[in-house]
Amino acid sequence: MVLGVDVGGTKVAVAAVEGVTVHEATEDPTVLSTTGALLDGIEAVVQRVIERVGKPAAIGVGVPSQIDYATGTVETSVNIPLTGVPLREELGKRFGVPVFVDNDANAAALAEAHLLGIDHLVMLTLGTGVGGGVVIDGKTFRGANGLGAELGHMTLNPDGPPCPGNCPNHGCIEAYCSGQALERDATELATDKPDSRLAHALGDDGKVSGRAVVQAAEDGDPDALFIFENFARMLGIALAGYVNVFQPERLTIGGGLSRAGHLFLDRAIQEADNRALPALLRRTTIALAQGGTNAGMIGAAVLAAQEVEAQNRDTPRTHATTTERAE
Amino acid sequence: MVLGVDVGGTKVAVAAVEGVTVHEATEDPTVLSTTGALLDGIEAVVQRVIERVGKPAAIGVGVPSQIDYATGTVETSVNIPLTGVPLREELGKRFGVPVFVDNDANAAALAEAHLLGIDHLVMLTLGTGVGGGVVIDGKTFRGANGLGAELGHMTLNPDGPPCPGNCPNHGCIEAYCSGQALERDATELATDKPDSRLAHALGDDGKVSGRAVVQAAEDGDPDALFIFENFARMLGIALAGYVNVFQPERLTIGGGLSRAGHLFLDRAIQEADNRALPALLRRTTIALAQGGTNAGMIGAAVLAAQEVEAQNRDTPRTHATTTERAE
Repeated sequence: MVLGVDVGGTKVAVAAVEGVTVHEATEDPTVLSTTGALLDGIEAVVQRVIERVGKPAAIGVGVPSQIDYATGTVETSVNIPLTGVPLREELGKRFGVPVFVDNDANAAALAEAHLLGIDHLVMLTLGTGVGGGVVIDGKTFRGANGLGAELGHMTLNPDGPPCPGNCPNHGCIEAYCSGQALERDATELATDKPDSRLAHALGDDGKVSGRAVVQAAEDGDPDALFIFENFARMLGIALAGYVNVFQPERLTIGGGLSRAGHLFLDRAIQEADNRALPALLRRTTIALAQGGTNAGMIGAAVLAAQEVEAQNRDTPRTHATTTERAE
Repeated sequence: MVLGVDVGGTKVAVAAVEGVTVHEATEDPTVLSTTGALLDGIEAVVQRVIERVGKPAAIGVGVPSQIDYATGTVETSVNIPLTGVPLREELGKRFGVPVFVDNDANAAALAEAHLLGIDHLVMLTLGTGVGGGVVIDGKTFRGANGLGAELGHMTLNPDGPPCPGNCPNHGCIEAYCSGQALERDATELATDKPDSRLAHALGDDGKVSGRAVVQAAEDGDPDALFIFENFARMLGIALAGYVNVFQPERLTIGGGLSRAGHLFLDRAIQEADNRALPALLRRTTIALAQGGTNAGMIGAAVLAAQEVEAQNRDTPRTHATTTERAE
């Protein structure tokens, strides 16, 4: 049995996980004041679960951050106070069991693959930016230094808009298929057409929010639908590329914007159909993420279980445990 | 000891390979008349090497073809009479040892990685079309069904020219960075400018050959240099994407056009520098392929050695061999 920990910008969720089955799921609001307070908050939730289920073989932690996976150090984070923190070591000391730390998009992709029982999966997470995770032969793919699978930063149009993320490129996937791209396009359109519905949705910050674009499109506003038509077309072009390059069994769309999938998924798949190599596309299913709210915990736990198993396999004499015997 | 076989459109090259060291390299012209004659020709060269070095543990074969790797069946080929041929089985019967068959671009990438001693490598092969191979953790990456890593078919410009290959897309890498793209651009330019040097290079088929564009660019012809400027810019955009997605230790440019690398490589790297995520680019070396003419044989042999090793590991009691003992 291992624990899965999902650290988000609003809550820290923890559960005991066997395979992909979740027990004793528990959560607290994320403490954002300081790094120390955040770690104390994580420790408190984890300890409540340990009191109920006993000491786990390992703990997996997913965070919204760039990770040096080899050392378990959080380099930078989006919404939480973790920058340059050796999180694996810090939490390992607090709990006295092996801890493994990964990016939340990697954890979500791993959960999705294991929930579906498939070995080859690519997940694009559409949120404020565009992230992703790649599972190959059932394992998370990270590139040579653990920084790979930056799936949001493949170029779709060399002369496109600047990437809104921390990226020097123009016209990459994040420049078209992210919440920030929706906001940019809606704000430009609202400025050009002061009588439009989107112009009335301009906020105090002078921007139309992604949420407002989604709402307008759901109400049938032609300007918002036009924006989503472009979003969907560019997403489909990206999907075709990832079918050709990775040939996964499944190409999954996750992240917050996947909840608006009814506004773009069919059109995106149509575009991918027109562009991907037919022999490869035939063998790939493109679909919205199935994992639900537990995916972050499950993926972190699957990672921890895989790492424990790999360590046992590499050093059978010194680390023989029930996990290895059960293989 | 294993044998590596490189089947090309003009010659069949065979050698005994230990690690990445080649012994008794031998070659014959490829017999192109019929499938049976081609197979007899391959058998004859291989038998000559076996007479000198003894029976190998396995034979690896690289072919310019689409392969169903699981069965070793050649589905289609570019320049040789192999279509729907169960090559692995056919050659296995002839030699009485395990045979493994892979695409020549995969074999070249595997050779390059092992010659350089690195585990993560992406190779783009620029020839008539654009192919490639991906090595992850020292092994060839193939996707879920062995059809993946079609690196030439990622979109660079959604409204670009139709892909000249057997691909429904517009504006993919092959539409910009292939020999066929050079020919297309040069022929268009020659037609528009009847007094140009390229117009004088128009062949009897009404086309300017890739070779003629290279020659004109080497002589400083501004039209040919303009074509290579665009070629290099688009290649750099592709390289940036593959740095971000795969984060390899090395991104290698191979294939026939790599011999004209002096006309485009520096400019392509400059473009990649402007677009790739800096933390990833810093850790990736972009360079021309180092493997030379033996790379095809070496890659096929490395593959065969890996497969023999994997089989011994999976079934140690029934397949214990000297290869396993030597580990």
